[in-house]
Amino acid sequence: MEEMKPNGAGLTYSSYLQLNKVLDSQTVMSEVAGRPVHDEHLFIITHQAYELWFKQILFEVDSIRHIFMNPSKTLDESKTLNIINRLNRVQLILKLLADQFQILETMTPLDFLEFRGYLATASGFQSLQFRLIENKLGMNEEYRIKYNQQHYKRVFNDPQSIAMLEDSLSSPSLFKLVEGWLERTPGLEKSEFNFWMKYQKAVNRWIEDCWLTVAQKEEDPVKKETKMLEYQKQKDTFESIFDPEKHQVLVDRGDRRLSHKASQGALMISLYRDEPRFHQPFHLLTLLTDIDSLMTKWRSNHVMMVQRMIGSKVGTGGSSGYQYLRSTISDRYKVFLDLFNLSAFLLPRDYIPPLTSAMKRTLSILSHEQIAELDADFEQSQSSSDSDEPINDKNSGANNGQEAVRTDADTDFF
Amino acid sequence: MEEMKPNGAGLTYSSYLQLNKVLDSQTVMSEVAGRPVHDEHLFIITHQAYELWFKQILFEVDSIRHIFMNPSKTLDESKTLNIINRLNRVQLILKLLADQFQILETMTPLDFLEFRGYLATASGFQSLQFRLIENKLGMNEEYRIKYNQQHYKRVFNDPQSIAMLEDSLSSPSLFKLVEGWLERTPGLEKSEFNFWMKYQKAVNRWIEDCWLTVAQKEEDPVKKETKMLEYQKQKDTFESIFDPEKHQVLVDRGDRRLSHKASQGALMISLYRDEPRFHQPFHLLTLLTDIDSLMTKWRSNHVMMVQRMIGSKVGTGGSSGYQYLRSTISDRYKVFLDLFNLSAFLLPRDYIPPLTSAMKRTLSILSHEQIAELDADFEQSQSSSDSDEPINDKNSGANNGQEAVRTDADTDFF
Amino acid sequence: MEEMKPNGAGLTYSSYLQLNKVLDSQTVMSEVAGRPVHDEHLFIITHQAYELWFKQILFEVDSIRHIFMNPSKTLDESKTLNIINRLNRVQLILKLLADQFQILETMTPLDFLEFRGYLATASGFQSLQFRLIENKLGMNEEYRIKYNQQHYKRVFNDPQSIAMLEDSLSSPSLFKLVEGWLERTPGLEKSEFNFWMKYQKAVNRWIEDCWLTVAQKEEDPVKKETKMLEYQKQKDTFESIFDPEKHQVLVDRGDRRLSHKASQGALMISLYRDEPRFHQPFHLLTLLTDIDSLMTKWRSNHVMMVQRMIGSKVGTGGSSGYQYLRSTISDRYKVFLDLFNLSAFLLPRDYIPPLTSAMKRTLSILSHEQIAELDADFEQSQSSSDSDEPINDKNSGANNGQEAVRTDADTDFF
Amino acid sequence: MEEMKPNGAGLTYSSYLQLNKVLDSQTVMSEVAGRPVHDEHLFIITHQAYELWFKQILFEVDSIRHIFMNPSKTLDESKTLNIINRLNRVQLILKLLADQFQILETMTPLDFLEFRGYLATASGFQSLQFRLIENKLGMNEEYRIKYNQQHYKRVFNDPQSIAMLEDSLSSPSLFKLVEGWLERTPGLEKSEFNFWMKYQKAVNRWIEDCWLTVAQKEEDPVKKETKMLEYQKQKDTFESIFDPEKHQVLVDRGDRRLSHKASQGALMISLYRDEPRFHQPFHLLTLLTDIDSLMTKWRSNHVMMVQRMIGSKVGTGGSSGYQYLRSTISDRYKVFLDLFNLSAFLLPRDYIPPLTSAMKRTLSILSHEQIAELDADFEQSQSSSDSDEPINDKNSGANNGQEAVRTDADTDFF
Repeated sequence: MEEMKPNGAGLTYSSYLQLNKVLDSQTVMSEVAGRPVHDEHLFIITHQAYELWFKQILFEVDSIRHIFMNPSKTLDESKTLNIINRLNRVQLILKLLADQFQILETMTPLDFLEFRGYLATASGFQSLQFRLIENKLGMNEEYRIKYNQQHYKRVFNDPQSIAMLEDSLSSPSLFKLVEGWLERTPGLEKSEFNFWMKYQKAVNRWIEDCWLTVAQKEEDPVKKETKMLEYQKQKDTFESIFDPEKHQVLVDRGDRRLSHKASQGALMISLYRDEPRFHQPFHLLTLLTDIDSLMTKWRSNHVMMVQRMIGSKVGTGGSSGYQYLRSTISDRYKVFLDLFNLSAFLLPRDYIPPLTSAMKRTLSILSHEQIAELDADFEQSQSSSDSDEPINDKNSGANNGQEAVRTDADTDFF
Repeated sequence: MEEMKPNGAGLTYSSYLQLNKVLDSQTVMSEVAGRPVHDEHLFIITHQAYELWFKQILFEVDSIRHIFMNPSKTLDESKTLNIINRLNRVQLILKLLADQFQILETMTPLDFLEFRGYLATASGFQSLQFRLIENKLGMNEEYRIKYNQQHYKRVFNDPQSIAMLEDSLSSPSLFKLVEGWLERTPGLEKSEFNFWMKYQKAVNRWIEDCWLTVAQKEEDPVKKETKMLEYQKQKDTFESIFDPEKHQVLVDRGDRRLSHKASQGALMISLYRDEPRFHQPFHLLTLLTDIDSLMTKWRSNHVMMVQRMIGSKVGTGGSSGYQYLRSTISDRYKVFLDLFNLSAFLLPRDYIPPLTSAMKRTLSILSHEQIAELDADFEQSQSSSDSDEPINDKNSGANNGQEAVRTDADTDFF
Repeated sequence: MEEMKPNGAGLTYSSYLQLNKVLDSQTVMSEVAGRPVHDEHLFIITHQAYELWFKQILFEVDSIRHIFMNPSKTLDESKTLNIINRLNRVQLILKLLADQFQILETMTPLDFLEFRGYLATASGFQSLQFRLIENKLGMNEEYRIKYNQQHYKRVFNDPQSIAMLEDSLSSPSLFKLVEGWLERTPGLEKSEFNFWMKYQKAVNRWIEDCWLTVAQKEEDPVKKETKMLEYQKQKDTFESIFDPEKHQVLVDRGDRRLSHKASQGALMISLYRDEPRFHQPFHLLTLLTDIDSLMTKWRSNHVMMVQRMIGSKVGTGGSSGYQYLRSTISDRYKVFLDLFNLSAFLLPRDYIPPLTSAMKRTLSILSHEQIAELDADFEQSQSSSDSDEPINDKNSGANNGQEAVRTDADTDFF
Repeated sequence: MEEMKPNGAGLTYSSYLQLNKVLDSQTVMSEVAGRPVHDEHLFIITHQAYELWFKQILFEVDSIRHIFMNPSKTLDESKTLNIINRLNRVQLILKLLADQFQILETMTPLDFLEFRGYLATASGFQSLQFRLIENKLGMNEEYRIKYNQQHYKRVFNDPQSIAMLEDSLSSPSLFKLVEGWLERTPGLEKSEFNFWMKYQKAVNRWIEDCWLTVAQKEEDPVKKETKMLEYQKQKDTFESIFDPEKHQVLVDRGDRRLSHKASQGALMISLYRDEPRFHQPFHLLTLLTDIDSLMTKWRSNHVMMVQRMIGSKVGTGGSSGYQYLRSTISDRYKVFLDLFNLSAFLLPRDYIPPLTSAMKRTLSILSHEQIAELDADFEQSQSSSDSDEPINDKNSGANNGQEAVRTDADTDFF
């Protein structure tokens, strides 16, 4: 590191960015060999730009993991803005990186052939930072496809790299942390709102209304049979999420990732995302899906670039390049796969179990005055109805009472 | 409209999208004239795609304005997710539209010259939807630059267009609605947190610490004078926002747009954006800035495309094309200009006035139990300190009490 | 069509673009059903924008096919600029369309679930224009994956659609036209340059130099065997392109598409792309690869969007949506697959067979004076060397003679 | 530089890319100062990524200038593919860099305020590479706007930077080289095709047909006057390019850049771009326009980012930031301004002077046989018509004779 003084005295653009090092790190091997190939310069710069951004992604992912890992195990809500902003930043970086292949594709295969010999055994498969990103996001070691029958870790020999890889695997991944957080979603407690029970009832009612009844009314026996089969298929789909054991079978197979309880949390957030308190959790789940989706696009664009450069021949570093990379564009490599498939378990709005007033309050963002007002309302309502009964949204205390108490009309911000 | 039945019986992809109409609306004028020019087809399709997306933008902006305009004048917080999602969608559409000029630029000037004669007086200046978007966002009529010494409204003659334009000007714009909402930002009330008084004190302290003291310590008389000038410049900058009359002068000049009170609200949200309740308002302000920024990019890309096509010559429809369009890329055409300039009035974190415990609570998102706990804490603290005194963030009741009360560790979601 | 007069009298922006039709084609079915869902509007607009651009792509592809199909079967070289510009335009449109899914992804699955019931049997599978694009580019009917065990043509019932589909299959596809053009690449004639014979010799020399010799020198018997295996693998790879019968086996399997002769043409262009006359053909091949690559990205982004919206459930129109679409992201759906794999058959520059002076001239772009000069040079050189002998590039007559003849230094443009 | 051996023995991905240096160049100053600000890391990485790509742009621009500067002063036509590919690459990089500001914009002003103090006098104004790019493209020193009344060179003090800047100004810029090349465009020679004389005649005929005649026929005296004024305006516009002195006045003012002769060349290429030999020159001019356009977008996005970060306050390094940067988004900073404005001087196809057969041949790409054939045709035609007479395109010898001579139908490639 440069001799940088905290007060920044004498700091210039160039010394701050350490351009003497960054811009002095391009050694064109074909030039060293005395047969310069123009396009190798682009090849180096592009990969260095990738690695710089990978460093930034790791920095953001680490900071997000750190926020989730606070000792009280409770997510400090003043930090959710940070998490969302940083995930959004990671998403924008990944979008840039996926597009960046277009630049590398201006290198033609014939040019690449001219200098690839100088690269010897160097290969993109050796990017440590990319492995760290995968591991820290939560890529499952078991689902990785072997490369030349070789484990990806084998290419890293120096102690520092090995230690960094080990740490990326032993410390909790973003996936694990999100899973834990989802498991604590309010509303899942059996003693209170008991979302899961309500959800199952609602689903069954929907399936009966929309598939069974329709099938039963059908008079044509052939069509009836088809419709009964469809009904059964729907039932089976939902059974796979209702039944913890069936869910576990799918997890063991790699078709699902999240624990049964975390899946419940994700569904709860998706169904009640309009409740103020779920706005940001919902945004967070969307960003995780975006990131997974962009990782897939990155892999996909990478493969297409490789196919152009080397066809089906052997890749640099001895890998079977194209075939290996192609196999990584699969649902196995999606960390947040369950968030993509969540849509299969949603319910039409009419069937979504209504919130109880207690739950409604928990998911509200209320001012002190509003809470007080709500309590009064609630106690009153208690005398005539059961507290666990769904309340009619349109008459919910939150909005009702508001106008009555407010004395300073000027401050009803939201 | 097609004979579409609500049950959608017999609906196909083609009938649903009314492709018989949409794909039968391309009449290539040069072909009608018997001298077909290949590139006119692209010219038509590109403009139709713009208009389709303009329709979508208007649909979203109208729906957002509608949410802000609810009768109670209070923004229903369960709707902020909708506002944010829709603004985000508008932003993505504008990004696409700004990029779309690249496609139109594949038309070359010589091709355009071949068919522009057939367009007669037709001109992009006549896009009704673009004017509606500008007006509904809140473009100020007075700041519009005249086009050939002509008011933009003069080109619309049919009663329907005139009515739509009138409505876009008479009903509250997004700008006006956001301004009203910002004026109600909690914390501005003089009788309570009194943000504005605290902010001014803090700014003055910062300016003295960082500019005045530094200048006074300077021994070299020439440097001292420079530093004193810098100090004065800082003071003047802030004076322009402190003093409502100076602010009004800038508003009258068109250098600022928001009311003095709304500016206070925007600053309050920016400084305390980490408070849970300000997360979404802050996100909303960011999206408005993004949209303004993209409108500018759209104008800017448009101008560059026009410059390529017609140089400094007369545009279609008799406009002085390039010159007029060029003049619209100015801060005068930025609706949310104040949000861009907000950064000039921020304070380093150390100088930001600490929240009182009451304000902290108002800006929190707390569960029922947490509120109760906080109240107890608060009452206790009351005995020894004034309620309006800033509380130390790190010992804030919110986090402190949390662990103590919580009994169901499994559900501490956030 | 509107009553448009060739002189465009009275034409306005709105009447020219037929906005009365285009902007009146959005019937929100959920609204018709009395239960409006906000996001359906976006769903309609996005699909209509896709279809508008599909129409433009078809317009460009048809015009390109038309240029290739001129009666003399010779490509008019004054038209290659048009072909390249139009392919480039198609590429930019496809890039936009691949990005456009980002906008549709702002629709959430829960919203989609709210209105998908109204769409009944309508499905994206029914997009006629998309099928026409696939067919006109040259998608092979045999490689199409069935959708619900159903042929894609079955969804089109009206005579006009059926006729358009039939025509898209019976008239020569862009693939077929490019194939024919590649077969006529200068240099392939056995009686003249005889590229194919020279290429095979050169490849064999390269394989011997770089694999066989290396293997033979190896002393360690284990390593020797590995190296001999690698040598054999290289030999086999090239054998598959040398031997017309082996090539045909791969074509029959669907692993290759181009005729044996067209493959030779594509290789010739790739290896000698620096010769002036091959600049544009090389650019053309690159653009075809780009377009194929973007079609794959479009399919890939489409699948990812569908996965978000419906998970693994049944798609609208009864398709098994995600699974079907996923299967189309495969090399089978790449029309110009051979251009991607071409890189497997390239040679390092040192091994590329040198051009004869006759061939060099054929591939040059020479002014009249230069040709005359070259002829003189050539006749002179004839006396001492065989005309078919490679000439040293650096002393090629073209550049040599140039300076000598030129009298008007001011006009040596290139 | 690392100890890299030409044979690349032991080279790994990491050592090849010198990641030990590149990834060890991020010193977060706020962290050094003991008060780490999260977003400073992004700030560093983004700027380093910019500088890496700037290095690549310089590498490409230098190589293109080198091709133009070959000693014979004749552009080797086998190199135009290289020039076009490299300009295209520069264009893609600039597109990426313009988009990259979106990532930096995720840093909020409040975060920036937290660490900008540590940057002391470091400022983006000190980017040497950006100045080199501007100079090597051909930015005119005189048109640069002063920054704090200071010349941009004053910030560079070390001998190496000064030497690099001097070199960037003293060696021929891309602009100068392109200008020289345009001046040699075939067709400009007075003794031969004499484009400029023909062009002036054609323009005059067009103006008379389309403006004068129309004005003269007008009976309404008021309208007549308006139309006469329009006629005069058109005449004046073209006069400014016809008359070398008037052109020079505009050059002196900075409203034009290219020499009078180079402007003629650019117009010639634009009007006859369909002639095979002008395909690539036309592509080249388009790419130069694209690059200028993207430099403007880069500046424009930069300004917008700065406005968000610092509002109208003082920038880092003491610059008046926003105001200065804003002033650089002007036609003064467009290097290839004349190429944008070229469209003002185009002619409808019917008025474009037809090529003589000699000129047609010069602009053709013909095989040896075709040239021979053409010569025969030409001599024959000479007996009955003047060689300088325009020949009817449809009967041009080039296409006419073709079929007659060709014996090997299989090889008429184009």
